Amino acid sequence: MDQLIQEFKNSGSFGAGRLAGACDIYEKMVRDKECTIFLALSGAVVPAGMRTLVTDLIRSRLVDVIVSTGASMVHDAIEALNGHHYKGNVIVDDRELYKYHIFRIYDVFVPEEDYVRLDYAFAEMYREIAAEKKGESLSSNEFAWELGKRLKDPNSILRAAYEEEVPIFMPAVRDSEFGFIHWLHASQENQKNILQVDAFKDVPQLCGICGKSPKNGMIVIGGGVPRNAVQSAAIASKKGLDYAVVITMDRPETGGLSGSTLRETVSWGKVKSEADKGMVIGDALIIFPIIVASVVERLGAKFRRTPYLKRGKLAHGE
Amino acid sequence: MDQLIQEFKNSGSFGAGRLAGACDIYEKMVRDKECTIFLALSGAVVPAGMRTLVTDLIRSRLVDVIVSTGASMVHDAIEALNGHHYKGNVIVDDRELYKYHIFRIYDVFVPEEDYVRLDYAFAEMYREIAAEKKGESLSSNEFAWELGKRLKDPNSILRAAYEEEVPIFMPAVRDSEFGFIHWLHASQENQKNILQVDAFKDVPQLCGICGKSPKNGMIVIGGGVPRNAVQSAAIASKKGLDYAVVITMDRPETGGLSGSTLRETVSWGKVKSEADKGMVIGDALIIFPIIVASVVERLGAKFRRTPYLKRGKLAHGE
Amino acid sequence: MDQLIQEFKNSGSFGAGRLAGACDIYEKMVRDKECTIFLALSGAVVPAGMRTLVTDLIRSRLVDVIVSTGASMVHDAIEALNGHHYKGNVIVDDRELYKYHIFRIYDVFVPEEDYVRLDYAFAEMYREIAAEKKGESLSSNEFAWELGKRLKDPNSILRAAYEEEVPIFMPAVRDSEFGFIHWLHASQENQKNILQVDAFKDVPQLCGICGKSPKNGMIVIGGGVPRNAVQSAAIASKKGLDYAVVITMDRPETGGLSGSTLRETVSWGKVKSEADKGMVIGDALIIFPIIVASVVERLGAKFRRTPYLKRGKLAHGE
Amino acid sequence: MDQLIQEFKNSGSFGAGRLAGACDIYEKMVRDKECTIFLALSGAVVPAGMRTLVTDLIRSRLVDVIVSTGASMVHDAIEALNGHHYKGNVIVDDRELYKYHIFRIYDVFVPEEDYVRLDYAFAEMYREIAAEKKGESLSSNEFAWELGKRLKDPNSILRAAYEEEVPIFMPAVRDSEFGFIHWLHASQENQKNILQVDAFKDVPQLCGICGKSPKNGMIVIGGGVPRNAVQSAAIASKKGLDYAVVITMDRPETGGLSGSTLRETVSWGKVKSEADKGMVIGDALIIFPIIVASVVERLGAKFRRTPYLKRGKLAHGE
Repeated sequence: MDQLIQEFKNSGSFGAGRLAGACDIYEKMVRDKECTIFLALSGAVVPAGMRTLVTDLIRSRLVDVIVSTGASMVHDAIEALNGHHYKGNVIVDDRELYKYHIFRIYDVFVPEEDYVRLDYAFAEMYREIAAEKKGESLSSNEFAWELGKRLKDPNSILRAAYEEEVPIFMPAVRDSEFGFIHWLHASQENQKNILQVDAFKDVPQLCGICGKSPKNGMIVIGGGVPRNAVQSAAIASKKGLDYAVVITMDRPETGGLSGSTLRETVSWGKVKSEADKGMVIGDALIIFPIIVASVVERLGAKFRRTPYLKRGKLAHGE
Repeated sequence: MDQLIQEFKNSGSFGAGRLAGACDIYEKMVRDKECTIFLALSGAVVPAGMRTLVTDLIRSRLVDVIVSTGASMVHDAIEALNGHHYKGNVIVDDRELYKYHIFRIYDVFVPEEDYVRLDYAFAEMYREIAAEKKGESLSSNEFAWELGKRLKDPNSILRAAYEEEVPIFMPAVRDSEFGFIHWLHASQENQKNILQVDAFKDVPQLCGICGKSPKNGMIVIGGGVPRNAVQSAAIASKKGLDYAVVITMDRPETGGLSGSTLRETVSWGKVKSEADKGMVIGDALIIFPIIVASVVERLGAKFRRTPYLKRGKLAHGE
Repeated sequence: MDQLIQEFKNSGSFGAGRLAGACDIYEKMVRDKECTIFLALSGAVVPAGMRTLVTDLIRSRLVDVIVSTGASMVHDAIEALNGHHYKGNVIVDDRELYKYHIFRIYDVFVPEEDYVRLDYAFAEMYREIAAEKKGESLSSNEFAWELGKRLKDPNSILRAAYEEEVPIFMPAVRDSEFGFIHWLHASQENQKNILQVDAFKDVPQLCGICGKSPKNGMIVIGGGVPRNAVQSAAIASKKGLDYAVVITMDRPETGGLSGSTLRETVSWGKVKSEADKGMVIGDALIIFPIIVASVVERLGAKFRRTPYLKRGKLAHGE
Repeated sequence: MDQLIQEFKNSGSFGAGRLAGACDIYEKMVRDKECTIFLALSGAVVPAGMRTLVTDLIRSRLVDVIVSTGASMVHDAIEALNGHHYKGNVIVDDRELYKYHIFRIYDVFVPEEDYVRLDYAFAEMYREIAAEKKGESLSSNEFAWELGKRLKDPNSILRAAYEEEVPIFMPAVRDSEFGFIHWLHASQENQKNILQVDAFKDVPQLCGICGKSPKNGMIVIGGGVPRNAVQSAAIASKKGLDYAVVITMDRPETGGLSGSTLRETVSWGKVKSEADKGMVIGDALIIFPIIVASVVERLGAKFRRTPYLKRGKLAHGE
């Protein structure tokens, strides 16, 4: 794999050059003993089959912090409860799917029953967490660990993150099935003693991690809220990112954050002007596995990474 | 304006046909006395100059509910405090901008001092709201109205929404300067008696509005969390949207929600199979004002819309 | 229409700002008495219903030279022979269409018989032209005029261009049904006395027009060969374009010409560094009619444009 | 490399699934003893460093026919004459580049003198070819071979194609520096005894190859005229393609050919409904080398392919 990337590096131009550059930057992040690595996840990460890739990165400590949409963790939880994302077809009559209770995500099918199973299992978890926490309000990453603690599947991202004490921030946690489940849970409990998640509590935690780390790097799959949350933490902690890789197909001209250039982030101080940074214009579900494969090959089988921030420290940005 | 749209309608194909169709759908939403209209905002809505357009839609009740990123309301608040989004340039040395404390959003410049002014003014507002609420946890739309109540600028989206009792949901409220301000506020107050915003409290409120409305329609600027939140409310309330217009440049193939087709939403029950629905592939900051201009022209100067859900009812989905 | 564009101009940023800028540039081209205006056409111009728009621009002399794919002129010819581009549907079983001899262009349907009618009618025209020209080799624009001369439909682009002596260059004329028809024609004639079109003969003609015109401006619908041909003529004639508007959804990062920035063209001398130039990222089939409507409104009903290059002069770049 | 592709195949969805599918299709084309393989080239193939990749495919007979823009062969010729495509920078002042006579193609720089050297060397070649051909009009592929015959660089695509008798069709040959050079050549020769290239002569040749081959497959880099020319040959020869892989970032909604779906081609009979076909949405300059690497790995070092159409047969579609 890395041989091809080296050929791309020699040409050095256009997308191939940017891809080779992104591999170099991720390798540098990994080898930099002072760098904390943030992985920002958006889009159909789990349905596209990148679940074990992310779990492996967590377990081998090639990432330190995950910032995710709620949906990706919902997809992870569905698989942890033996649900499946089936290979489907994009040319299909969605009215038929609706009739047969099959949800479509582009060319992937998920049975509605997998969601129903999730709803009831997790509502029960919410009840249990609420009972333990006795009215204390959680942050999104504390919530993620509580979920991971209760999942058994070793391939689960939530489980792996809990075991490895890798924080998973979900800045828009409510915007996913987790939100609906909370409504179900609150109904079941008659609105009493229900799980509390604080909308703002993870802000100082995420910023704290940036702040305590001598250097910070991010890898963005897609964009959206996860990218923004990492960049905002970098500026709020007055650090600015030292490394940045963004993989996206969004474009800059509309002014949306997902497609905005890394050059633009420099004006804000989100990314340092002298940072190693690069953007790959492409489908992250193709590009990111290539980057990881290339970098893992360079690191070699014996390589072990020791994160700068120790486990407890990472937990709550303390 | 509408004359051109009618010509587009006659051709009826490609983007022009889709744009004409979108105008028809929005017109139908407005004229349908049973329909509640959700406007989902993402991207650089305010920096691009669409602020008064949104305010006008709120005041003339041509939209009933807004679901927004935090950032758009931050931009609105900045202008409400006499900050500005200046016409800048995309070809500029961002290191220079950084040096001069100017933030860049594509080709728009915002002075850092506008953000600093916002930070301190709003931290004070947070303190005041917290004092009033005495530990009660707010939902994102309750929070938005509390902010709107304290702004004086009649052109402010937040202010207009407060005055007109149009709910503004911000499902990822923390992912914006509002999150940083909360950190500042909490530090100022030594973590005591601080503003509480509940991550999940707006879920039943948004779903409740869908549920109580005989019909529901959405217009999406861009996509992201706001689009997902409306669609999720439609499915959670077991209604399914009756009308849907999405304006985006994102594409479906990567599996991300922003670019996903409206056909796909039918499999989930988010949008009804028989709904009037259409997607316009283009820059929402160009396309949406055209749609509004065309529909307003059709409605005529004397047209007044009476929303199905009365003010108090809309407030908390009650 | 122009009122909205003026509002876009006031905001001045993002796509809306670029669109307003493009209107200004086209207006300047039209009012500049020394400027020759090149319209470069690619994509589904005719199926999308822009045929009469182009014909009107030719007849009102708001463009001076057209550079087109072969396909657009094929589509024009099909309609001139009473063929139709029908409003179809993008979700359809193409195998069924194939069975019923219906060709699909995105959401437009064309019966195969319209192509068959074209094939035989035009093969006869080719024979006639060949007989008249007695072995002389034509350039693509001479060929276009010979076709226009033989069409009766006043709404035909080819016909209008012939009548108004507006040259139509087709640098890739062979890459269209015109190529297949030539094969048919040659078979019918047993390869004898067949129509000759020279691949290179239009190069000095197109360059000559640029060269003799004090100023040159281009408007690009889409990109591809037509855009490249105009830009190449500008550099070959050592003039460089004074005005340039490009409307496209292609992106620059892959290195393809269609998405390349106008800034990049400056390095080549294709467009002057001081030129009025702007790129609108969007669907040209929506954007271009808006630009034309806005500019025509500004010009007023009494406006008449007198092209710098007189009819005969434009004909062959003489 | 192929290991990763196999993992993509297992997931089977979204872009990764499409990429794995494209590898399978290309492998099938190569192993199908009755299939003639067309490679359609557009975009910055040579500047991006894919020149030797294409040359290798020609020499190892993993492609049988090339259909290219003129520009890609111009870039090949520049390198054959010791010109270079230098790694440049996208953020640069193009006015400075212009001043220093450096042409920019996105992030690649080419000195103007490389073009000047090409102009004069090739004008001399044109003279020589014209002298040899004595007024006979060439097709674009006959012209390409005449150029290849006169180049010495073994890494040249034109040279390799000439040596291996792999036809190179350039349906828009005039739309490139080859067009300007013809103008220069004609001026040098006072318009007498100049090189004749017939615009239509390659149509029956390309169609003839399709017609004589039991099966036909195409791989498209980008789209544009080269893709259209192959598809048109498939329909004109009444064969329909049996295999098709398209790699592009263009989208279908605007109606342009480059982004049109392979499903749509079925309605025309350009691609058979039962064909193995797939589209990869991404940067071809990244994706195509990955596909080739994966397939070459599967074929193994000892694999030798014998094209169905013998050398002489391929030459002129005879």
